[in-house]
Amino acid sequence: MAHKNIFFAHSGGVTATINATLCGVIREYKQHRDHFDQLFVGCGGIMGALEENMVNVSNWSPQAIETLSMTPGSAFGSCRFKLKDPEQQASEFARILDVFKVHRIGYFIYNGGNDSQDTTLKIAEYCAAHGHPLVCIGIPKTIDNDLEITDHCPGFGSAAKYIATSMFEASIDLAAMSKTSTKVFVLEVMGRHAGWLAASTALAPKPFNADIILLPERPFNESSTLEEIKHVVTSKGYCSVCVAEGLKDQNNQIWSSQIDTIDAFGHVQLGGAGPKMASLIKEKLNLKTHYAVADYLQRSARHIASKVDVDESIALGQAAIKHCKARKHGVMLTIQRLSNHPYKTRISQTPLNNVANKEKLVPDHYITDNNLNVNKACIEYLAPLIAGEDYPKYYSGLPGYQAFPMNLVKKQLDAVTNL
Amino acid sequence: MAHKNIFFAHSGGVTATINATLCGVIREYKQHRDHFDQLFVGCGGIMGALEENMVNVSNWSPQAIETLSMTPGSAFGSCRFKLKDPEQQASEFARILDVFKVHRIGYFIYNGGNDSQDTTLKIAEYCAAHGHPLVCIGIPKTIDNDLEITDHCPGFGSAAKYIATSMFEASIDLAAMSKTSTKVFVLEVMGRHAGWLAASTALAPKPFNADIILLPERPFNESSTLEEIKHVVTSKGYCSVCVAEGLKDQNNQIWSSQIDTIDAFGHVQLGGAGPKMASLIKEKLNLKTHYAVADYLQRSARHIASKVDVDESIALGQAAIKHCKARKHGVMLTIQRLSNHPYKTRISQTPLNNVANKEKLVPDHYITDNNLNVNKACIEYLAPLIAGEDYPKYYSGLPGYQAFPMNLVKKQLDAVTNL
Repeated sequence: MAHKNIFFAHSGGVTATINATLCGVIREYKQHRDHFDQLFVGCGGIMGALEENMVNVSNWSPQAIETLSMTPGSAFGSCRFKLKDPEQQASEFARILDVFKVHRIGYFIYNGGNDSQDTTLKIAEYCAAHGHPLVCIGIPKTIDNDLEITDHCPGFGSAAKYIATSMFEASIDLAAMSKTSTKVFVLEVMGRHAGWLAASTALAPKPFNADIILLPERPFNESSTLEEIKHVVTSKGYCSVCVAEGLKDQNNQIWSSQIDTIDAFGHVQLGGAGPKMASLIKEKLNLKTHYAVADYLQRSARHIASKVDVDESIALGQAAIKHCKARKHGVMLTIQRLSNHPYKTRISQTPLNNVANKEKLVPDHYITDNNLNVNKACIEYLAPLIAGEDYPKYYSGLPGYQAFPMNLVKKQLDAVTNL
Repeated sequence: MAHKNIFFAHSGGVTATINATLCGVIREYKQHRDHFDQLFVGCGGIMGALEENMVNVSNWSPQAIETLSMTPGSAFGSCRFKLKDPEQQASEFARILDVFKVHRIGYFIYNGGNDSQDTTLKIAEYCAAHGHPLVCIGIPKTIDNDLEITDHCPGFGSAAKYIATSMFEASIDLAAMSKTSTKVFVLEVMGRHAGWLAASTALAPKPFNADIILLPERPFNESSTLEEIKHVVTSKGYCSVCVAEGLKDQNNQIWSSQIDTIDAFGHVQLGGAGPKMASLIKEKLNLKTHYAVADYLQRSARHIASKVDVDESIALGQAAIKHCKARKHGVMLTIQRLSNHPYKTRISQTPLNNVANKEKLVPDHYITDNNLNVNKACIEYLAPLIAGEDYPKYYSGLPGYQAFPMNLVKKQLDAVTNL
């Protein structure tokens, strides 16, 4: 039997270390060329399969691989396109099968979050049912850290390190100015349902940690939150607040969703949990308040990546190739934590349907009784994930990130435009 | 004549390297103890003089000084309290004179922006007129880079490096996702009147630099801006926009001005240009848009400080002590650029009234004809200022920033409460 090709793709929101995982895949693949034919990467994630846009990275130089490992984003793009249902999306599934067949894809490695693990599963089942068995491996990836089974997710540690450092630095700034100026600082971070990123602001050392952390896991209680802010400002002189973008109101609706409206005077009412929280604090407590919105900065901050995270991201890529070789099919790789002191983990795996479309939220036993912070147990869980630095190389004062050439594999099918 | 004490204070918004300047002051002071008595630092800037709150740093250990040099914010606080007019603020000026007399202050070093240089000047004149001559030295400091005479301002290079890197990273993220998701990214940066910080987003290498930079120096032209965004998205697939918080409308009013938020200097508190711009783009162009607001993060990001900036900040602190010793009175230190290739500077000085209350904006010849970006000449000016890395030490995954003990010098005056 001729060796088959591997198709690898990124999916969903990118991270500071998702390219590092691809780097691990390429490095390990190069060690096992006697078991595989070529290594293709999909352009724009699974869109690359649908559009037959693939790059062959089999012969990448060690130098290119190293540059890849220190570049954030996704070198060949990612996507927010979801494949859910072979019956409703018959043409998409059939197209992927065609592309996989004609390009002799025998291995499909998909690096993404819970939506993506669902896609991996569906494609594996579909291809098997249509006479094209695939070895199908999911690699976890999400700054939200919300995948089940795995102890934590690659990409999260680096985002958490960025957020913890940002809160640390901004709180030091706030402390210096608070006597005659700003009293409250609000940092908005990502996290639609899970508050892991918000929780990471607890990692900054006292007194420069977040005094209040508003998690999506707890409905926003305006009066208790304002009361606590007032109390902290009175006792400490200033107050740092972290709010997750997905903070819910008492009716379980996104607290900051009633925004982006224009009033009668044509003024845009500004949106987002950060600006909205800052406005509320100013209005109700009459305290000078600043806010920052981290947005993409938090998930692309490769310049302050966690060494633990980078190493684990690379190791998972390497493990994916080993799993392909061993034909351990239909699983997502996981990280198992063995001990905290010293921090030790091992890579394991779980059937894809254990993680697909499920979310791991910050558990109750990590949240303080007043619902406004996380506790020591949570900090104990988070702390090892931000350990160590892994600086990119710098050129002329800026990180040496690169755009990578998109030399496409020759197409063998007609373009399909009606997908 | 007995040696006199030195009073040093920070003023205005803090920076990533303002403590490094203090570090230079302390180090150099230790070399000239035969010319000075003690070195005091005001707590909360000039408030430290008004309230007789001063810390004696004369005997700080080299280790404490090193930690200081890598900690952002202001170790002993800064302030937004402005001393303007000895006639209208007679009690404040009298109080400072009393404190300076009783503590035998013979040297006053004030590290701040243009408002602060005005304060330095006023205090110097007042003390001289009341029989207490002071050697009075201003040190430039502002992330806004808007001081006259000096080529650039300490603190700016590090903020610019942070902003350029952030735009670089966020644009890489955007590029990866743009095919099926976000098309436009907006980064809001500081800059009330001067667009130097916004301009620094041009430093990221193409295609990951800012496609559009909205400077406070140019009134916002909604139609030409939206037209250009549309054009860039069409041709490139995505568009990165930087907007300065101080962007003006066609009537020279702050485009995103907030109501009822006026700080101690009488300035309107800014904020909201980022979210407002994102809303506008979404509404008018129907493009998925993300925004980040850098706020305090940009001026406290010591973790990605510019080596050039740190070194210059320290050197200015050292020069201030030398100027005190040489009794070069009534001047602000400046940085003169001697050459770009290689980058060479020297420290000079200028009379305080050459800089007090003046602002250096981004000049016309640095702005592109369409008013929506800066040109090569501007990049040439900016590039050397972000060169080199100067990482803080890390402990447990976070920078080793510290809070410093506030051991106050014994008060010799009664407290004054009616200032």
